[in-house]
Amino acid sequence: MNNLEKILEEIASLKTHLFNQDFLLTWDKTEDELRQTLLVAEALKYLRDNNISTNVFDSGLAISNFRDNSTRTRFSFASACNMLGLEVQDLDEGKSQIAHGETVRETANMISFLSDIIGIRDDMYLGAGHTYMLEVGNALDDGYKNGVLPVRPGIVNLQCDIDHPTQSMADLLHLKNYFGSLENLKGKKIAMTWAYSPSYGKPLSVPQGIIGLMTRMGMEVVLAYPEGYDLIPDVIELAKKNAAASGGKFTVSNSMEQAFNNADIVYPKSWAPYNVMQRRTQLLQKGDKEGLNELEKEALATNAKFKSWECTEEKMKSTANGKALYMHCLPADISNVSCREGEVAASVFERYRIETYKEAGFKPYIIAAMILNNKYRNVATILQKLYKQQKPRLLS
Amino acid sequence: MNNLEKILEEIASLKTHLFNQDFLLTWDKTEDELRQTLLVAEALKYLRDNNISTNVFDSGLAISNFRDNSTRTRFSFASACNMLGLEVQDLDEGKSQIAHGETVRETANMISFLSDIIGIRDDMYLGAGHTYMLEVGNALDDGYKNGVLPVRPGIVNLQCDIDHPTQSMADLLHLKNYFGSLENLKGKKIAMTWAYSPSYGKPLSVPQGIIGLMTRMGMEVVLAYPEGYDLIPDVIELAKKNAAASGGKFTVSNSMEQAFNNADIVYPKSWAPYNVMQRRTQLLQKGDKEGLNELEKEALATNAKFKSWECTEEKMKSTANGKALYMHCLPADISNVSCREGEVAASVFERYRIETYKEAGFKPYIIAAMILNNKYRNVATILQKLYKQQKPRLLS
Amino acid sequence: MNNLEKILEEIASLKTHLFNQDFLLTWDKTEDELRQTLLVAEALKYLRDNNISTNVFDSGLAISNFRDNSTRTRFSFASACNMLGLEVQDLDEGKSQIAHGETVRETANMISFLSDIIGIRDDMYLGAGHTYMLEVGNALDDGYKNGVLPVRPGIVNLQCDIDHPTQSMADLLHLKNYFGSLENLKGKKIAMTWAYSPSYGKPLSVPQGIIGLMTRMGMEVVLAYPEGYDLIPDVIELAKKNAAASGGKFTVSNSMEQAFNNADIVYPKSWAPYNVMQRRTQLLQKGDKEGLNELEKEALATNAKFKSWECTEEKMKSTANGKALYMHCLPADISNVSCREGEVAASVFERYRIETYKEAGFKPYIIAAMILNNKYRNVATILQKLYKQQKPRLLS
Repeated sequence: MNNLEKILEEIASLKTHLFNQDFLLTWDKTEDELRQTLLVAEALKYLRDNNISTNVFDSGLAISNFRDNSTRTRFSFASACNMLGLEVQDLDEGKSQIAHGETVRETANMISFLSDIIGIRDDMYLGAGHTYMLEVGNALDDGYKNGVLPVRPGIVNLQCDIDHPTQSMADLLHLKNYFGSLENLKGKKIAMTWAYSPSYGKPLSVPQGIIGLMTRMGMEVVLAYPEGYDLIPDVIELAKKNAAASGGKFTVSNSMEQAFNNADIVYPKSWAPYNVMQRRTQLLQKGDKEGLNELEKEALATNAKFKSWECTEEKMKSTANGKALYMHCLPADISNVSCREGEVAASVFERYRIETYKEAGFKPYIIAAMILNNKYRNVATILQKLYKQQKPRLLS
Repeated sequence: MNNLEKILEEIASLKTHLFNQDFLLTWDKTEDELRQTLLVAEALKYLRDNNISTNVFDSGLAISNFRDNSTRTRFSFASACNMLGLEVQDLDEGKSQIAHGETVRETANMISFLSDIIGIRDDMYLGAGHTYMLEVGNALDDGYKNGVLPVRPGIVNLQCDIDHPTQSMADLLHLKNYFGSLENLKGKKIAMTWAYSPSYGKPLSVPQGIIGLMTRMGMEVVLAYPEGYDLIPDVIELAKKNAAASGGKFTVSNSMEQAFNNADIVYPKSWAPYNVMQRRTQLLQKGDKEGLNELEKEALATNAKFKSWECTEEKMKSTANGKALYMHCLPADISNVSCREGEVAASVFERYRIETYKEAGFKPYIIAAMILNNKYRNVATILQKLYKQQKPRLLS
Repeated sequence: MNNLEKILEEIASLKTHLFNQDFLLTWDKTEDELRQTLLVAEALKYLRDNNISTNVFDSGLAISNFRDNSTRTRFSFASACNMLGLEVQDLDEGKSQIAHGETVRETANMISFLSDIIGIRDDMYLGAGHTYMLEVGNALDDGYKNGVLPVRPGIVNLQCDIDHPTQSMADLLHLKNYFGSLENLKGKKIAMTWAYSPSYGKPLSVPQGIIGLMTRMGMEVVLAYPEGYDLIPDVIELAKKNAAASGGKFTVSNSMEQAFNNADIVYPKSWAPYNVMQRRTQLLQKGDKEGLNELEKEALATNAKFKSWECTEEKMKSTANGKALYMHCLPADISNVSCREGEVAASVFERYRIETYKEAGFKPYIIAAMILNNKYRNVATILQKLYKQQKPRLLS
């Protein structure tokens, strides 16, 4: 039994309901559903690595709707769609415009006549991104139900104000790969910590996504940040419940050192405090440029008090065997490389650089898995079919 | 005999000459040719709805040349090309530049070495759009004749200053579908009327396209607008001739009420007066910003005199059985929804909202039909082949 | 034996090492490797012209990285990728930004997880373009070696500060075609001359590419320019060595008339002097707008002294039989057509217009050949396979 056969067997053993379901938040999904997503990603990677075609769409559009700048997520989405046979068409609404209700309902249908998947990134406005995705979903339900759309396109959350599931799931797949299995993650300590960066206004979705997901794996999750850099309270509550249910642990600390101590994994990354994001959202919605400038100054000044929140060699020494796995969603603010003082010391980053690239490399497969799960009731059968077809990706 | 077989039989009975012909104006086409376009669109929809591949191009480029902003036509063109196997490559010339003769000749060839179709939208300048398309066509003829181009790419008019054939043909297919057949349209009254909008400078191509096409279907076409909101005189003449030839009727009125009275279909939509568009064209060509601002003010003030030109519940009551089909090319200016006072009352629009979405949903298929007709001398044979192949669009 | 079989036989006779090698400079390649590139381009053209699919990629991304504006190279690259089955994804970094070392290393990997080819155009900064491509190549080597990338994407130089190999190779294929064979080019005189243009700052890569390549074909290459309009000294040295090795000739002249005299081919085209490009690079890097404006004024004033450097009917008369082949990479500055005074007289250009279009038409095939050579150790076998498959490009 080769690796793929093992994967397919495991998928077959799961009870999931991913068919025709949007992927918006990892905590909307059962543990089996998360497992299936990882497994399908691994199966697709196996096929691709063995030059076997994963093309299931003879034609079809995937819509990308980036309401914020993006390079790597854009490429991950494009890669995922391409490997399944979908062509990406970008919906460029103009970044500043917050779409009006009527417009969302109409636009969602207008772009979907021959579309199979819609990938949305909307992380600028606290309280808006996830809501927008739900609104698009409702509009698509309405269009499908009323015979406007031949299929109900699935939605993949490419980052919202609450969660960043394609990132956290890629991170989880990286951990599974690095530590050998999901089971091996049980009891491992992961430190999701704030880190200093000479910029402000970075979204909360990565730390929220990490604590929302890793607490389900029976891990010991420590969230650490300087006083005032809180995340959305609901997600904190959720992480607590998750940890309790999975036999893991979730604690919040205001000490980076404490978080790093004996950690198996560290994820030092900057973000803006919840209340700063709230004020920023209000100012953005008002289009108050002066207010935004003032907020930036103030926030940067506050940030500057916490320059010691850097992932240094010194701090790495206190982790488990001094060898915790360093993770980052990239690009990292590397001290003396991409900025003077940043999230991580150059020597630490360099030692884990290739690992962070590998971490990022899982994202296209995670997205492709989310799409495939959305399209097939029985995804194992289709993967088996692709395997048996043995159609080469590159003609040989 | 299933639905597709009936369609193919009907196509086979038509005498058409669409192969290698550009689709620029509906009135360049014979009635059989218009019928074939609708039928091919229906056949493609049948195949797609039954998960049968419509991919005829193993590779090939489709060029899109949008000389004006567009979202829905862009997506329709992308969808149409994708379902046939063509990849869209966008030619972005910079919107303000009116291309010079030499440039058109050269550029048309440079982008066409491996291209099969060119979709052009050029509706900003009265007197320019259609002329530009002819110029591109001549350049392609020249390149093909001289051995520069391996095939002569076909041109599809995605909206010009005179006609908007992909819109009007999608509208016609919607009517065929709604009323059961083209034959059922004979004698039906359609009111193509101006409506108030808090914007100015909307192109004339939609109303012109509608009166130029629907007068050929034996319909009673009433064009209504406030005094001064004339269309291009040549198109009015054409509509008259068409009506005479088809056994239909064409009248012009300055009363929205009169137009709505006993109408089976109403199409209330704003446009700029012909002479405003002429002045606007001159100002745009001169780059006279101040003049444009003044013209806008003046035109909006004139518009504001006709706020009563709204498609209200009151007016809808006077239509045939109070149940005329409301049509719009979208997006509509909906009173109290997308603007304070607009083209249509919210309750009327909401009642027909799904119908307008369906109307729009025919456009990708119409465009794909235009492409297929351009590429195949015997399009029924190819459709038959696709049907017999039964290659799934989504692998199953 | 048909034309394709002859081509494949000839390819089989060559000793080349193009597999997995970037195509950055023609002078990095052996004569056999250049010949193979031309032959594969011809084979692909044969297949395409005979409606035979050249799709070797079932899926896969090609990244285009245009650090300077481009229309025709963009379309050529898109066409080349499309005919092989690759989808182009554009990396838009923002034009002014000179990427930082760390960023290049990281970005190169981030965009390459499922990529097969990267096409780069970077010709704005003297000393930067070629260096950047090497840097990207090193980053890809690193990512591949460390298991980040499943394949090492190949790089195709779509124009750098030193060479423009897709242009010069397309030019060479045009010459091969026009004169019947590469052997027939031996001893032919080609005049690569500067010509007046009312713009400044045109890159040096075209003339450098031409003298670097044509001197290897046993041709008599004359480079002519007004005093001060030197090219990069290293390329001049290289051209001398090439000519000596190939039994050709390379001379530099300051007289357009001398260069044209008895020439079989003329290539009159404007460029900026080497030292102007050096100063411009420094000013661009400093972001010194005023300095750039001054440099432009100064350079245009210098240019204006050489308005007599125009390819006129008079000068054409002095060429071999008065019938030298006129070449240009397009767009040309045509006197009284695209500008008042330019590189070429309107009547001369018009006579050779179609030939220049054909010249340009080889570029998509040259690029596709470079990609195919990068992907296959034995490219003749794959071309044979495509031929035997006889899969139609357009279903028939």
